[in-house]
Amino acid sequence: MSGEEAPVQQQQEPTEEKTENPPTEEPPSEAAQEGEPSPAEEPVDEPAAATPDKAPVAPEEEVFTYRALFLTGYGGYDKVKLQMKKGKPSLKSAEVLVRVKACGLNFAELLGRQGLYELLPSPPVTPGMECSGVIEALGEEVTDRKVGDRVLVLSRHGLWQEVVGVPASHTFIMPESMSFEEAAALPVNYLTAYIMLFEMANIRAGQSILIHMAAGGVGIAATQLCQTLEDVTVFGTASASKHETIGQGGVTHPIDYRTRDYAEEIRKISPKGLDVVLDPLGGSDTHKAFSLLKPMGTLIVFGAANCVTGQKKNLLAVAKTWYNQFTINTLRLMHANKAVCGFHLGYLSDEEELITQTMTTLLELYTQGKIKPRIDSTYHFEQVGDAMRRMHERNNIGKVILLPEPKKEDKKEEEKAESNPEPAETEDKKEEEKAENKMETSTEEVKGEEN
Amino acid sequence: MSGEEAPVQQQQEPTEEKTENPPTEEPPSEAAQEGEPSPAEEPVDEPAAATPDKAPVAPEEEVFTYRALFLTGYGGYDKVKLQMKKGKPSLKSAEVLVRVKACGLNFAELLGRQGLYELLPSPPVTPGMECSGVIEALGEEVTDRKVGDRVLVLSRHGLWQEVVGVPASHTFIMPESMSFEEAAALPVNYLTAYIMLFEMANIRAGQSILIHMAAGGVGIAATQLCQTLEDVTVFGTASASKHETIGQGGVTHPIDYRTRDYAEEIRKISPKGLDVVLDPLGGSDTHKAFSLLKPMGTLIVFGAANCVTGQKKNLLAVAKTWYNQFTINTLRLMHANKAVCGFHLGYLSDEEELITQTMTTLLELYTQGKIKPRIDSTYHFEQVGDAMRRMHERNNIGKVILLPEPKKEDKKEEEKAESNPEPAETEDKKEEEKAENKMETSTEEVKGEEN
Repeated sequence: MSGEEAPVQQQQEPTEEKTENPPTEEPPSEAAQEGEPSPAEEPVDEPAAATPDKAPVAPEEEVFTYRALFLTGYGGYDKVKLQMKKGKPSLKSAEVLVRVKACGLNFAELLGRQGLYELLPSPPVTPGMECSGVIEALGEEVTDRKVGDRVLVLSRHGLWQEVVGVPASHTFIMPESMSFEEAAALPVNYLTAYIMLFEMANIRAGQSILIHMAAGGVGIAATQLCQTLEDVTVFGTASASKHETIGQGGVTHPIDYRTRDYAEEIRKISPKGLDVVLDPLGGSDTHKAFSLLKPMGTLIVFGAANCVTGQKKNLLAVAKTWYNQFTINTLRLMHANKAVCGFHLGYLSDEEELITQTMTTLLELYTQGKIKPRIDSTYHFEQVGDAMRRMHERNNIGKVILLPEPKKEDKKEEEKAESNPEPAETEDKKEEEKAENKMETSTEEVKGEEN
Repeated sequence: MSGEEAPVQQQQEPTEEKTENPPTEEPPSEAAQEGEPSPAEEPVDEPAAATPDKAPVAPEEEVFTYRALFLTGYGGYDKVKLQMKKGKPSLKSAEVLVRVKACGLNFAELLGRQGLYELLPSPPVTPGMECSGVIEALGEEVTDRKVGDRVLVLSRHGLWQEVVGVPASHTFIMPESMSFEEAAALPVNYLTAYIMLFEMANIRAGQSILIHMAAGGVGIAATQLCQTLEDVTVFGTASASKHETIGQGGVTHPIDYRTRDYAEEIRKISPKGLDVVLDPLGGSDTHKAFSLLKPMGTLIVFGAANCVTGQKKNLLAVAKTWYNQFTINTLRLMHANKAVCGFHLGYLSDEEELITQTMTTLLELYTQGKIKPRIDSTYHFEQVGDAMRRMHERNNIGKVILLPEPKKEDKKEEEKAESNPEPAETEDKKEEEKAENKMETSTEEVKGEEN
């Protein structure tokens, strides 16, 4: 499968990783400069050793390199490649340099790879809207962050890389108890869910809601946020194998949309309809959503997942979703006493006050134990194709996370290969490890539809 | 003018009025039965005298009569006629009989007269969605109301009559300090404004709003309700002569839409746009409204006043408003992060819990002095054409009220006419009084556009 070609890229372009060393002190590696494999280093075990050894090599033209994922064109999983970037990210006066520890994978990146996400610049481009990490350097004007701060970061794109310069205002201090994976899982899904529920729909105690893809990142976030209110009835669609998990998470009525008509199921239980429907699907499902609303109900459309079928752009699916797109006139809205909203976090990026306020609220809720991102699985950068496939095939329950650091097995392998360059054995071993690693990171065996 | 024909109807079909007497004890008047003029009686001065005098006339076929307005067909002001209804309104077990003291006039009734309000049954029908009065009798099952309770009443139609039977659940006890005129002015305008602002738009402190027809009933209600929040910036359209009044009422930026482009004026002051727009106009103004919203803003369409131009239905205006009707697809909504809602109180009449809760809140706000309906003018039933013209020509600031009780001047006139039946003199006098009365009730000389 094409998605498995990504790790090959990693083998051609391995990396160095020095969590403890600020990048300014990072000397260039000749091998890395030329895109050749170089021995990976354990960031914790060998924090300072490399610096004195390598510093003399090219002191006057220091070249900093780091691992970054690139979308190289539109198409299948193989279009996202791991490459080395050269040169320290430039740091503006209001920016901070972050050593990235974990990144979130979002549906937007699946769309982007297919050429269906208009906010992502044309390839080649580094995707990535959220990450967590540690601040390594500060721009001159930054006074409210310090080196060593653990932060989560939100951006339009560009975060899928080992180090990144971002405006300090786009970083948020992580609570002490939060892991890097949780921090990378939080921004997009929880901001989306929170703003839709509490800013747009104004959901209140005692109301009812339909959450599609209830085992996906936004679905789980929305379900958890509904639990912060008394007595909200949550209808959640997911494949049957995920019902136990989402039920424990707060979904009152899990519905297997694959075997039943979810609208019929909902009407059986709630004949008057629903107060809120969150619709990430688009197309004909939006029509169903509108009809399921009770008077004074609110529909929020925040995606067009129905556009995405195969690995590559499916013009028929796009056309069908577009053709079935919900269009409404104000007379019909008046007679129904309903609200239709559109939500797209990407187009809200200028609303810094709203984002900052909401993020502050979310981090408080996390600290209070009221929300907790559910990590479905973690993949190293070189496994990005597998990560995307997992989300694309809706096998995840919760968030799929990408880790910038190289797979340890691979790194050990590379070390071994250096000391004993026997390619055949190495390759076999690697294949084994890849298989193992896949099982490690993809612990959920259920099949479903969530993102 | 056609509207002035209504009083003639009154002269042909006068009434008796006995506020203090329950209708069950009301004996028939032969004159009233035949539709002939009979001396009008002062309800307070002669409460019980009529009963013993007239009881012997037709004890076995008691006929109760009362004044009621009827829409007799679609068209101009003359289509609403004052007539006598015969027979005591039947009272179901959950209903109460209300002696009506004041009725509200709404834009819906102007539309209804033109055949443009689909919730009003076909003529002949008695309009009237709100009134105030005193409970005169209780259905068997009614336990939470008592005879003598001062109540305000909400209904789909049918309240423009002297006595009316309504479900007890559609009545609300008036605060002691509230006048009947205020009580008749409150339900439709304040429910509309409150539900739009706080249930749909979820307006909050520090936000901004555009209120069209800010000197109209809903406009004044919405402006007052915005004052219950801190620091809401209210843009309000009205003709220049009304600016002082609406400014005192809480409109931060009054805009004369007749001499300026209101959208341009708003953008000068608030370049980022508005959080909320209330749109009672429809057509091309809805497009302007949408474009005036800032991200996360909410547009609520709750009327199509642009349909109404002349006294009779203007097919061109209707077609133009219809043609320009705002239609939106979900993709555009998503990219804009905006909400579009429709509101129509008439289609919410089944939502008794919402209506009851909101009315309770509104009566509390009244008692706290936070809202106070502004009465523009009062007209007797026989002057309904003048009342409609005042609203239609947007000359009102606040609410136009209809009173079931006959004009006192006319009653005196009739008494005089009976004792000294000299038609010529009487007619002259009546014409004078009509003119006087018109000036009395239409004290505002300004010209504007509000309802």
